[in-house]
Amino acid sequence: MQFTALQIATLIKGKIEGNPDVKVSHVAKIEEAKEHSLSFIANPKYEEFLYTSNASVIIINDSFELVKPVTATLIRVNDAYSGFALLLEKYNEMISRTGKNGIEQPCFVSKTASIGKNVYIGAFAYIGDNVMIGDGVKVYPGCYIGDNVVINENSKLYAGVKIYDGCSLGSRVIIHSGTVIGGDGFGFAPQNDGVYKKVPQIGNVIIEDDVEIGANTTVDRATMGSTYIRKGVKLDNLIQIAHNVEIGENTVIAAQSGVSGSTKVGKNCMIGGQVGIVGHINIADGTRIGAKSGISKSVTIPYAAINGSPAFEYKSSLKSQAIFRNLPELHQRLLKMEEMVQELTALLNNQNLEVKK
Amino acid sequence: MQFTALQIATLIKGKIEGNPDVKVSHVAKIEEAKEHSLSFIANPKYEEFLYTSNASVIIINDSFELVKPVTATLIRVNDAYSGFALLLEKYNEMISRTGKNGIEQPCFVSKTASIGKNVYIGAFAYIGDNVMIGDGVKVYPGCYIGDNVVINENSKLYAGVKIYDGCSLGSRVIIHSGTVIGGDGFGFAPQNDGVYKKVPQIGNVIIEDDVEIGANTTVDRATMGSTYIRKGVKLDNLIQIAHNVEIGENTVIAAQSGVSGSTKVGKNCMIGGQVGIVGHINIADGTRIGAKSGISKSVTIPYAAINGSPAFEYKSSLKSQAIFRNLPELHQRLLKMEEMVQELTALLNNQNLEVKK
Amino acid sequence: MQFTALQIATLIKGKIEGNPDVKVSHVAKIEEAKEHSLSFIANPKYEEFLYTSNASVIIINDSFELVKPVTATLIRVNDAYSGFALLLEKYNEMISRTGKNGIEQPCFVSKTASIGKNVYIGAFAYIGDNVMIGDGVKVYPGCYIGDNVVINENSKLYAGVKIYDGCSLGSRVIIHSGTVIGGDGFGFAPQNDGVYKKVPQIGNVIIEDDVEIGANTTVDRATMGSTYIRKGVKLDNLIQIAHNVEIGENTVIAAQSGVSGSTKVGKNCMIGGQVGIVGHINIADGTRIGAKSGISKSVTIPYAAINGSPAFEYKSSLKSQAIFRNLPELHQRLLKMEEMVQELTALLNNQNLEVKK
Repeated sequence: MQFTALQIATLIKGKIEGNPDVKVSHVAKIEEAKEHSLSFIANPKYEEFLYTSNASVIIINDSFELVKPVTATLIRVNDAYSGFALLLEKYNEMISRTGKNGIEQPCFVSKTASIGKNVYIGAFAYIGDNVMIGDGVKVYPGCYIGDNVVINENSKLYAGVKIYDGCSLGSRVIIHSGTVIGGDGFGFAPQNDGVYKKVPQIGNVIIEDDVEIGANTTVDRATMGSTYIRKGVKLDNLIQIAHNVEIGENTVIAAQSGVSGSTKVGKNCMIGGQVGIVGHINIADGTRIGAKSGISKSVTIPYAAINGSPAFEYKSSLKSQAIFRNLPELHQRLLKMEEMVQELTALLNNQNLEVKK
Repeated sequence: MQFTALQIATLIKGKIEGNPDVKVSHVAKIEEAKEHSLSFIANPKYEEFLYTSNASVIIINDSFELVKPVTATLIRVNDAYSGFALLLEKYNEMISRTGKNGIEQPCFVSKTASIGKNVYIGAFAYIGDNVMIGDGVKVYPGCYIGDNVVINENSKLYAGVKIYDGCSLGSRVIIHSGTVIGGDGFGFAPQNDGVYKKVPQIGNVIIEDDVEIGANTTVDRATMGSTYIRKGVKLDNLIQIAHNVEIGENTVIAAQSGVSGSTKVGKNCMIGGQVGIVGHINIADGTRIGAKSGISKSVTIPYAAINGSPAFEYKSSLKSQAIFRNLPELHQRLLKMEEMVQELTALLNNQNLEVKK
Repeated sequence: MQFTALQIATLIKGKIEGNPDVKVSHVAKIEEAKEHSLSFIANPKYEEFLYTSNASVIIINDSFELVKPVTATLIRVNDAYSGFALLLEKYNEMISRTGKNGIEQPCFVSKTASIGKNVYIGAFAYIGDNVMIGDGVKVYPGCYIGDNVVINENSKLYAGVKIYDGCSLGSRVIIHSGTVIGGDGFGFAPQNDGVYKKVPQIGNVIIEDDVEIGANTTVDRATMGSTYIRKGVKLDNLIQIAHNVEIGENTVIAAQSGVSGSTKVGKNCMIGGQVGIVGHINIADGTRIGAKSGISKSVTIPYAAINGSPAFEYKSSLKSQAIFRNLPELHQRLLKMEEMVQELTALLNNQNLEVKK
């Protein structure tokens, strides 16, 4: 399957610089591209490859200024990363790995479940009582959908996703393998003898439209009410979302982070990997949190950047970290000073000038 | 389904203040409660809602002193959280989502397995050779129970739990979806050429009565002997318990924490989220460990609180963290001092008073 | 089943000290060993047990020097841990828990899949279109193998492993339960309205020979090209490997660590638990990284040890951590000095010696 630079430029509404008839047969990372490769440069870190790459066609930003001649045909778009994403999407549709359809046997579908049109239900998938599956939904092999779950149009659950009873998923939701939605929140009432008594978790999880959740992530059901994953949220792999948490619209969270019970995270936040957020606090809209940070209290100012554990203002935290590295030297300087002051004091005392200790 | 305040008070052995005939139809968080809501207040953080809530019935602590009039009917109990937990439990039994029973087909049950009475075995569950399943056990769809596993009375494994061969579970154990019990410990002997040789892991995992384990947690089998999760332990989601570890009775561990090989954690410990504990150490009974802490050596004093990475005494660690935040300012002050001492020294030298450098 | 010390020494090519005819019937940890136990000592921490143990046979290092008499028969080998590992391996083969064979029903095998000889395919396993399964491969119950996946000879996938389409596994690869290979990388292009557009992930994952991966770990497919897990790599449980990462030969990574997108980790590295590594960097061959470290930039010097978050040279980081503990005391000393210098300055000013502020 070959495409010309012109065909690609038309598809992503880009402007051609160079030969519009040059042909590409595959996509590649810029540093690995060869003849007939189509590639892109969005991250400035990779700009140097522009001048040395053997790629036949490269997508770049409108604003990019050439400092040397290039051999590849360039296609300029407003945002090269988005342009390339669009292209991959078209490509993906063509070769489609997403083309699964129909009901594979054996699977288990309750008689009281309602199944939409054009769905895929893989072998060994389990669909419980009163479940509603919307049109175009794909349930891959080995998924478990508990009683009374609702899954809206065109959502896709990869192999082995588990959704506990009573949870609800919006449209175009994507959930990757092994993720568990709606497990019991971690709620136990300590008794006088040290034993913990389980607090039943009778709420559910509500996942809104256009959410994507990675592999082996866990989202617990609410004790009462709902745990909310709002519209457009993107969660990476191995994330923990505790009971009664709310993650606001279009917030993205990187892998292995965790949000404790009843915390509300605002919209448009960007949260790095391995971050931990304590329970019962609020994180303002647009907060950016550095990887590995620990958030111990509410963030009230929107669009702030914070970092560290416990976290505080981003740049200050970098300064503290830099000094932390030099603590041994700083300690030596303090020792030296103590000696010198001691010396000065002794000297002045010798001069019959008394210095208070 | 409606209940009167009196019915509820009787159920949880509480004392009514207000109208015993008021009716409730559902439970709700105090901040979201409406007419006919039943709610509770245990956390002092939520006390303000007591006076503004529209809840019809609110469960509170005996010791709680009213400072304003309330409109709701109050039910007083010794511990409101436990009282509410008890109520949810009764409620849960009534509506029961736990009411699954019987053997769904297709499932795979070895001819040599022994299955108790009143069990639930979901579709696509796999029960290996010589497995013993006690009375009242529930094995949800897609679980895997390896050969020679023992599961005692009234335990419940949610969808997709995997138990490797030879492990044993007590009575009333609850394990949530995706959790893996008995995978091989991470044991490899380095060879001279840099290659790692696998050390076979021939032990098992023993989980005692009344343990609850969250979703996607992993508990590795012992190299030899057993990894132990003692009576009443509660583990949250995405936790790692390595080979030959022992977690003592009634210890609770929050999400994403990890305990390395051969470490023994005492009884009644409370361990926060994202904590890491190194291998081959002992943690004394009742130790409380702050979230995100890293424990690098044994904790020998029982019932101590520790924090930080590496962790030390809790309050001291908060002090060090507070100063860490101000390290840039502290550094400036040190610089200022160095200048001043320099100045003093020069001045005195000018006075023919010699100061040692 | 009983063995003499002589039989065992012959098997692992060791040298006997003591009675070659003494019999053992089982293996045990040195601190739990009884009569007829076979045990070993590799870690110096456990040497004291040598003189008090009731074990009948103990495997120790050639270089070990006795300081007291021992009652057990000793078998000396070059490396006691490797010797013991070899023994467990032989033992394991004998009692074999790895002896599963044949095709259990019901399973789902695409007509276009190619299945080798002497394989085990467990019930509820799913084998997609054009999959190639090599000789001696074991696919435990409930595994999902997507379309076009290749699994080479003698690899073993424990229950519930999920491999997305197009990924490839070498020979003798072991993957534990719940692990997900080939889920989509976390790639989204932010749009002007705050919405994130998914970047299709059309690459795959390539796992080379002799790799072992623990339970509930996630390895994402590349955006383009491949995510590589090189020959002999050992990954523990709950690890996150992001898209386009490469993990070099014979590198070992402990539980709950994460490697972000496009980072290349060298050969023979040893990475502790709960470590986080940012994206787009290189880690030199042989790097050793302390548990819970955060790596924010490339490591260029091979075989260095680093620690901390952000990480720097290992011993320096321990020194900084030690001073961190004493920051409150250090702060007090600085305050004291400020007072004294103030005092000195005032005193000298009183003497009509002016000191610059």
